[in-house]
Amino acid sequence: MEILITNDDGIYAEGIYALASAMRKVGNVTVVAPDTQRSAVGHAITITDPLRVVEAKRNGKFFGYAASGTPADCVKLGIKAIMKKRPDLVVSGVNLGGNQAYNILYSGTVSGATEGALLGIPSMAVSLDTFVKPDFAPSAAFAAKLAVQMMKRRVPAGTLINVNVPHLPAKRIKGVRVTNQSRTCFNDWFDKRKDPHGNTYYWMTGDYKPEDPDKASDLNALLDGYISVTPIQFDLTDYKFVPELENWGLKFR
Amino acid sequence: MEILITNDDGIYAEGIYALASAMRKVGNVTVVAPDTQRSAVGHAITITDPLRVVEAKRNGKFFGYAASGTPADCVKLGIKAIMKKRPDLVVSGVNLGGNQAYNILYSGTVSGATEGALLGIPSMAVSLDTFVKPDFAPSAAFAAKLAVQMMKRRVPAGTLINVNVPHLPAKRIKGVRVTNQSRTCFNDWFDKRKDPHGNTYYWMTGDYKPEDPDKASDLNALLDGYISVTPIQFDLTDYKFVPELENWGLKFR
Repeated sequence: MEILITNDDGIYAEGIYALASAMRKVGNVTVVAPDTQRSAVGHAITITDPLRVVEAKRNGKFFGYAASGTPADCVKLGIKAIMKKRPDLVVSGVNLGGNQAYNILYSGTVSGATEGALLGIPSMAVSLDTFVKPDFAPSAAFAAKLAVQMMKRRVPAGTLINVNVPHLPAKRIKGVRVTNQSRTCFNDWFDKRKDPHGNTYYWMTGDYKPEDPDKASDLNALLDGYISVTPIQFDLTDYKFVPELENWGLKFR
Repeated sequence: MEILITNDDGIYAEGIYALASAMRKVGNVTVVAPDTQRSAVGHAITITDPLRVVEAKRNGKFFGYAASGTPADCVKLGIKAIMKKRPDLVVSGVNLGGNQAYNILYSGTVSGATEGALLGIPSMAVSLDTFVKPDFAPSAAFAAKLAVQMMKRRVPAGTLINVNVPHLPAKRIKGVRVTNQSRTCFNDWFDKRKDPHGNTYYWMTGDYKPEDPDKASDLNALLDGYISVTPIQFDLTDYKFVPELENWGLKFR
C-alpha cells in the first residue's frame, strides 16, 4: 500500500516522525509536509505564491519532502507532483493537540486529510489530545492498525476518518469509540494590550470547558479515556432546513 | 438591526463597499475586514501573532476597521472587541468569485460567516460568480433584502446562508433558488518551473468544468441564471456511515 503522510506541525515535528515510523510497517511511505508549523490554517491553499519543495533529513537519513505551503498544498503536491503512483491512503498527523468538536474547522491536520478525501483517496487525520509531554507512540500504532482496516473495508468517497487519541499511557486507553463531532464551542476572547510604542494590539486567547450532553460525541469519548473515530464528510448543506427556507419564498425582484 | 460586515478581498475591495452601502439602508453597519486580500485562507485564525486594528477611510469618510487578520479573526474581533452591542447579523462579502460546491471549504468569505454562525448569530456569505468586470450592485441589493427576511424568520443556530449571484445584469437574473452544495470538484494541477537561479518551484493552477448532474445544486442554479441560496451547517459527521464503521469492530489492543 502506498501511503502519503502530512501534518500541520511541520516536517520536523515529533508526531509525524512517530506516524511515519509506524506506517512504514504496513506500507510504502512518502512524507510531504510543511517546512514550518502551520497550525490553525484551516483549509487554506496557496494560489498567489509559488511553492518550493526540498528534501528533508531526520536522524541523518532522507525522511521526506518539505514544502513551503499548507497541509492541503502538501497533499496536492504529493499526489499531483511528487509521488509516482497515486497513494492508496492519505494520513495527516499525529497532531499535537486534539481536533475534536468544531476544532476540525480550524485544523490544518484535518485539512490535509480533507484534501485526500476530496481527491477520492481514503484519508485519515490523527491527533493526540494534549499540548504537554506528548507520547505519540500509541496514536501512531493505532493509526497503522486503522490504515490496514481502511484498505480491507470500504470508506465512502469523500469521507475521511478523524481520529483523536486521549493523552493516556497505552495501557490506560480503554478502547475505541465510533463517535460524532461534538457541537460544543470554544470560549475565546481578546486580550487588548499596548505595545512598547504605545500602539494597541489584540491577542486571541480562550478556554474550553469540556462539557457536552451528547454522550456519542468525540469530546466525551476522549474525556472517558477512549480513542474517538469520527467519519467526516464535506457536503455542508443543512438539508433539514432546506424545506423551511424554500417556504420563505425568496425573490430577487 | 446591528450588522457586522467582513470579507476576504480586504477592506478596500469594491464588493464590501457595495455591500456596506446596501446594508446601511436596513440597519446600523460596522465593517471589520482584513487590511489586505486574504483569499483561499480557509477557516484560518491567528493565534501565534498579535492582531492590529486601524480605522480605514473610503472616499474621505470613516468606513470601518481594518485588521491584520483573516475574515474569521475580523468577525471575532468585531463581536468580542470592537462592537458595543452584539450584532444581530453577520454578512461576509461581496466576494469577487463564486463560492459554490467545495469552494466553500477554501473560502475566506464563507469562513467569516461561519465564525458568526458558530457564535450563534444569523450569518450570510455573499459571492458574485465572476472574476472580470464585476457589478456588485445586484448582489448587494439581494443581500439587504435577504437580511430583512433573516431578521423576520428563524435560521437554525449554527447554520449560515451561503448566497451566490450569477454574473448577469440585474434584469437578466431569473430569480432565486434554494439549493444544496454541489459535489463537483476543481480539476487542479501544478506547473513545475525553474526560477532565474535554476531552482524548481511549483505553481498551482487548474480548471473547472461546470457539469453537475445534481439539478438542485448551487452550481446549476448559477449556470441557469438564478441566485443560489444554500443553508450550510458545520456538523460534518457522516451519520450515514457511522453504523457501518461501528461494524468494523475497531480495537486499540
